[in-house]
Amino acid sequence: MIRLTHFLPILEWGKSYTREAATSDLVAAVIVTIMLIPQSLAYALLAGLPPEVGLYASILPLVAYALFGTSRALAVGPVAVVSLMTASAVGEFAQQGTPEYLGAAIVLAFLSGLMLIAMGLLRLGFLANLLSHPVISGFITASGLLIAASQLKHILGVPAHGHTLYEIILSLAEHMNEVNWITVCFGTGATAFLFWTRKGLKNLLLGLRLNPFLADVLTKAGPVAAVVFTTALSSAWHLSDHGLRVVGDIPSGLPTPQLPSFDSDLWLALAGPALLISVIGFVESVSVAQTLAVKKRQRIEPDQELIGLGSANIASAISGGYPVTGGFARSVVNFDAGAATPAAGAFTALGIAFATLFLTPLLTHLPQATLAATIIVAVLSLVDFGAVRRTFRYSRSDFSAMAGTILVTLFFGVEPGVVCGVALSIALHLYRSSRPHMAIVGMVPGSEHFRNIDRHKVVTGDKVLTIRVDESLFFANTRYLEDRIHALVAERDKTEHVVLMCPAVNAIDASALESLEDINHRLSDAGVKFHLSEVKGPVMDRLKRSDFPEQLTGQVFLSQYDALSALDPPAAQSAATRRNATDHVQSEPVT
Amino acid sequence: MIRLTHFLPILEWGKSYTREAATSDLVAAVIVTIMLIPQSLAYALLAGLPPEVGLYASILPLVAYALFGTSRALAVGPVAVVSLMTASAVGEFAQQGTPEYLGAAIVLAFLSGLMLIAMGLLRLGFLANLLSHPVISGFITASGLLIAASQLKHILGVPAHGHTLYEIILSLAEHMNEVNWITVCFGTGATAFLFWTRKGLKNLLLGLRLNPFLADVLTKAGPVAAVVFTTALSSAWHLSDHGLRVVGDIPSGLPTPQLPSFDSDLWLALAGPALLISVIGFVESVSVAQTLAVKKRQRIEPDQELIGLGSANIASAISGGYPVTGGFARSVVNFDAGAATPAAGAFTALGIAFATLFLTPLLTHLPQATLAATIIVAVLSLVDFGAVRRTFRYSRSDFSAMAGTILVTLFFGVEPGVVCGVALSIALHLYRSSRPHMAIVGMVPGSEHFRNIDRHKVVTGDKVLTIRVDESLFFANTRYLEDRIHALVAERDKTEHVVLMCPAVNAIDASALESLEDINHRLSDAGVKFHLSEVKGPVMDRLKRSDFPEQLTGQVFLSQYDALSALDPPAAQSAATRRNATDHVQSEPVT
Repeated sequence: MIRLTHFLPILEWGKSYTREAATSDLVAAVIVTIMLIPQSLAYALLAGLPPEVGLYASILPLVAYALFGTSRALAVGPVAVVSLMTASAVGEFAQQGTPEYLGAAIVLAFLSGLMLIAMGLLRLGFLANLLSHPVISGFITASGLLIAASQLKHILGVPAHGHTLYEIILSLAEHMNEVNWITVCFGTGATAFLFWTRKGLKNLLLGLRLNPFLADVLTKAGPVAAVVFTTALSSAWHLSDHGLRVVGDIPSGLPTPQLPSFDSDLWLALAGPALLISVIGFVESVSVAQTLAVKKRQRIEPDQELIGLGSANIASAISGGYPVTGGFARSVVNFDAGAATPAAGAFTALGIAFATLFLTPLLTHLPQATLAATIIVAVLSLVDFGAVRRTFRYSRSDFSAMAGTILVTLFFGVEPGVVCGVALSIALHLYRSSRPHMAIVGMVPGSEHFRNIDRHKVVTGDKVLTIRVDESLFFANTRYLEDRIHALVAERDKTEHVVLMCPAVNAIDASALESLEDINHRLSDAGVKFHLSEVKGPVMDRLKRSDFPEQLTGQVFLSQYDALSALDPPAAQSAATRRNATDHVQSEPVT
Repeated sequence: MIRLTHFLPILEWGKSYTREAATSDLVAAVIVTIMLIPQSLAYALLAGLPPEVGLYASILPLVAYALFGTSRALAVGPVAVVSLMTASAVGEFAQQGTPEYLGAAIVLAFLSGLMLIAMGLLRLGFLANLLSHPVISGFITASGLLIAASQLKHILGVPAHGHTLYEIILSLAEHMNEVNWITVCFGTGATAFLFWTRKGLKNLLLGLRLNPFLADVLTKAGPVAAVVFTTALSSAWHLSDHGLRVVGDIPSGLPTPQLPSFDSDLWLALAGPALLISVIGFVESVSVAQTLAVKKRQRIEPDQELIGLGSANIASAISGGYPVTGGFARSVVNFDAGAATPAAGAFTALGIAFATLFLTPLLTHLPQATLAATIIVAVLSLVDFGAVRRTFRYSRSDFSAMAGTILVTLFFGVEPGVVCGVALSIALHLYRSSRPHMAIVGMVPGSEHFRNIDRHKVVTGDKVLTIRVDESLFFANTRYLEDRIHALVAERDKTEHVVLMCPAVNAIDASALESLEDINHRLSDAGVKFHLSEVKGPVMDRLKRSDFPEQLTGQVFLSQYDALSALDPPAAQSAATRRNATDHVQSEPVT
C-alpha cells in the first residue's frame, strides 16, 4: 500500500514542526521575499508578460510546492530559462500585450502542470535522464546568452524583438538610430552596479570584517537597492516623459482564482512546448534540489518532485501566473538563510502577497532598464564556457552534442535546441555502442587468464579463434558484430572453432539473438563451430528461453579456460605449464 | 585514396566477365523477366499508379543498380511494402489517377534516391541499425496484412479506399452492396490457384520426378499463367462490359527520360516520407543482399549499397517510375536461376523494355482482380506470426516494441508505424540500460576473485564496500548509479571506503564523469573515501584527460584484490588463507 505521507510530504515534516524551525523558516522567507520581488517582475518582463504576472506566479505555486514537494530548501517561482521558453512558445500564437498572449501563457502553465503530475503518477521521472549533462549545460549556457541579448533592447530603449540570436541582432541593428540615451544611462549604470555588487561588494564587506552571512545577504540585495534608487530617480525627474520606459501602473490586489480557458486547438498546439518546458524545468529543479538535499543528508524523490512541481504549475495557472520551477539562486539563498522546512516557501508566499497588495503602487516609476540589468547579471552567471572546454578535452562526442545544442539554441531557438540536444545525445550514444570494442584474446602463459593479443604476450593456437566483445549486444551493434566475426574468420582459414567470450556482455536483445543465430548458421556452412564462454547468469537464463542453445553447433563454456582445454587441449596444456607468474598477471588491468 | 572500383563495382567484375557467366546471367534474366511483368503491374496498382509505371520502374533502375550495386544477385524494382508506403505518402497530396499523383510519386523516388546517395557518401549505412529486428519483422508483418486488406476491394470489385486497417474495413463495409460477382469469381479463383501453385504444385511436380529447378521455375510462373488465362477469358467474353475492372489500354513505348518537376513545397512535404522509404527500402534490400552474398562467401558493402539503391531510384524517377528497392522473392529467383553478376539485372531490364514495347497491347483485358490476387498471395508470405511468438518468449521488452510497431502500422498507417517502432526500440534500450545491474561483491575464500554476495559464499568486511556495476556508464544511467551508491552507503554506517569495481564498464561519458565527481564529493562530505578498481585501459586513458583522478579521494586499483589488500589488509589476509579452492571457483560463471 502506498502511504498518504508519500504523496503529501507535509504530513511527515508537519508532525514535528518546532518553534525553532518556524523561526528559521521565517528569517529565510523574509530574505527570499526581498530577493524575489524584483526577480519576479523581471522574469515576467522576459516572458513578455505584465509585471504583476511574475508576482502572481510567486504566491500560490510556493504554497502548492510546500504541500507536495520533497525538497526542504527548493524555492519555486519564475526562472530565466523557463521564462524565455514561455516567450518563445506563446509568441507563436499571440502578440505580446494582448489578452490572448496572457491566456496562452496561463494555459501553458496549466498543461505543464498536468503533464508533470501525470509523469509523476506514471513514475516517469527517469525520462529526465535522456538529457545528458553536456546537453543541459550547453542549453543553459546558450539560453543565458540568448536572454542577455534579448534584454539589450531594454538597456538601449529600442523596440527590438526576435527569438534567436540572429533575429535579435538584426532587429537591434535596425533600430540603432532610436536609442534613448537616458535609458542607456540607467541600463548600463544598473548593470555595472549589479556586477560590482556580485564581484566587488562582498569582498569589500568581508574586508570590513562584516559577518559573512550578512555580507552575503547584502550582496544578494543588490537588485533591491538598484530598484529603489532608479525608481526614486525616475519618479523625481519624471523621466518617463523623456522616453525612459517604466513598469507603469501595476494592478494591486490578488488575482481571483479561475480555470484557464479551454480551446482544443490552442491546447494541442501548446502541448509540445509544454512538454519541453516541463522536462527542462524538472531537470533544472531536481538538480538544484538534489544538490541541496545532499548537503544535509536528506533525500528527494524524483517522482514526487514531479507532482510537487506539477501542482505548483497548476496553482500558477489558476492564479493567473505562468510556468514556474525551482530556481537555483533563490534556493541557495533560502538554504543559506536557514530554511528548515517547506514552510519557508509558504511564508515567502505570504511576503509576496503582501507586496502585491501594498507595494505595487511604489513600482510605477521603476525603469524597465533596471529589471533588464538584473536579468542580464543573473543569466550571465549561467553561462559556463569552462564546462564547454572541459567537455571538449574529455570527449569529442559529448562535446559535439553540447556544441550542437548551443548552436541550435542560439540560432534556431530554445525548443529546437532541446530537441536537437536530446536527439544528438541518443544518436551519439547509439553510434558509440554500435561499434563495440572487440579483441582477439589468447592465454597468458602460466595462468588461466585470457588477454587481448595486441596488448599482451599471450599464447594462441590456429584451431581456436577467441573473440572477446566488450559491450552488451543489441540492435545497434549486431551488424557490426556479424561483420567483424566473419571478417576475422575469413582471414584465418585454419580456424575450426570460434569462441565468443562474453564477460562484459550484460544483455543480449532479440536482434542480437537473431544475429548470433545467423553467425552460428553461417559459420556452420563454412565448417566452423561456434561456442560461447563466460556468459553471465542472467544473460544465459534468457538465452535458454530461445532455441539458440539447441541450434548452437558448439557449446557454452563456463570459463574461457574450460573452452580452450576442451577444444585445443595441447595449446591449453602448453600455455598452462608455467604457473609461477599468476599473481603478476592477476594484477594487470583488463584491456 | 579511394579507388574508382569502389564506387563503380562494375569495373571489378566486368574485367573478368566470361561467356559462362554471360550465359548464366541470360538464363536468370529470362526467368526473372517473366516473373517481374505481372509483379510490376500489380505493385503499381498497389501504389495507386497506372500499370505502365510499374514497368518503367523495372527498366532503368536495374541498369543503374548493375553499375553501382555490390550484390551479385539482388534484383531491384517495385516491391510491396515500398509501394504501400508510396501510396500512403502520395495520397496525402493528390488524388489517385491525377497527373499530380504520378508527379508526386516520381518526386518521391527522386528524393529517396538523393537521400540514399547522400547517406552512402556520408557513410551513414549504420543508421539502418536503428531498426531493430523485432521492429522490422513487426513492420513487415503488419504491412503484409495491410496490403492484403487493401487489395480486397479489387477482389470484390468495390470502390473502397483507406490507408489504415480501420479505414479499409469501414470503407469495404460501406460498399458491400456494390459487390460485382464476376469480379469475385475471378479474384477468388486466381487467389486459390496461386495459393495452390505455391503450396501444392511444387510437390506435385516433384512427385512427377521433374527436375527440382524446373519445378521451382514453373511454380514461380504461377502468376504468369493466371494472367494469361484470366486475360483470355476476360477478353473472349468482353467481361469488362459486365463490371469486371481491367487494366485497360497501356501506352506502349518507352518513357522519355526527364527530370521531375521542382516544387519546393511538395519536395519539403515529401522529404519525411522519402526518408522513411529510403531507410525501410535499404534495410529490406541489404538483408536480402547479405543473405545471398553469404551463401557464396561474397561480401556486400552497406555504404556502396546505399549508392547503388540511390542511383536506382534516381533512374526510376527520370524514367517516370516510382520508388524501388531490392525485392526478396525476385532476388532469390535470380540467385537460384544462376545469376553470376549484376549483368543479369541489365539483361532483365532489356526483357522488361521489350515487354513494354511489344506486349502491353495484350494486357488491355487483364483483370485487376488477377493482379490483386498475385499481391495478396505474395504479401501473405511476409506475415510471420512465428517471429511474434518467439520474440514474446525471449524478451517482453523486444516484444512490446514489436507489438507497438504492428498495432501502430495497422491502425495509424505505415509511416507512424516505422517512426513509433524506432522510437520504441531506442526508448526500451535506454530504459534497460538506465537501470544497470549492480552487485555488492565479496572475496571468494582462497582465491583472488570477487563475486556477488547474493549469489556466492564470499567474505566481506565492514570497512570496505565494493560495488560492481555491469554496464557502461552514460547519461541515461548516471542518476541511478548515484542513487544506488548513496542508498547502499546510507545503509552501512561503518563504511570507510567505497570501491566501484568496473570490469564491465566499457565507457564513461561526460555525464557519467560528472556523476562520479559528484559521488566522490558527496562521499567525501560524509567522510568516506571513493576508489575505483579494474578500470579498463581505454576507459582509464580517457579519465586521465579530466581532473577526476586528482580529485578522487581514494585510488584507482588495477585489481580488486589489490584494493582490498590496501584498504583492509586483515580482511584480505583472512579470506586469502584457503588457496586450495581456486580452480573450482575459476570455473564458475560471473553473475
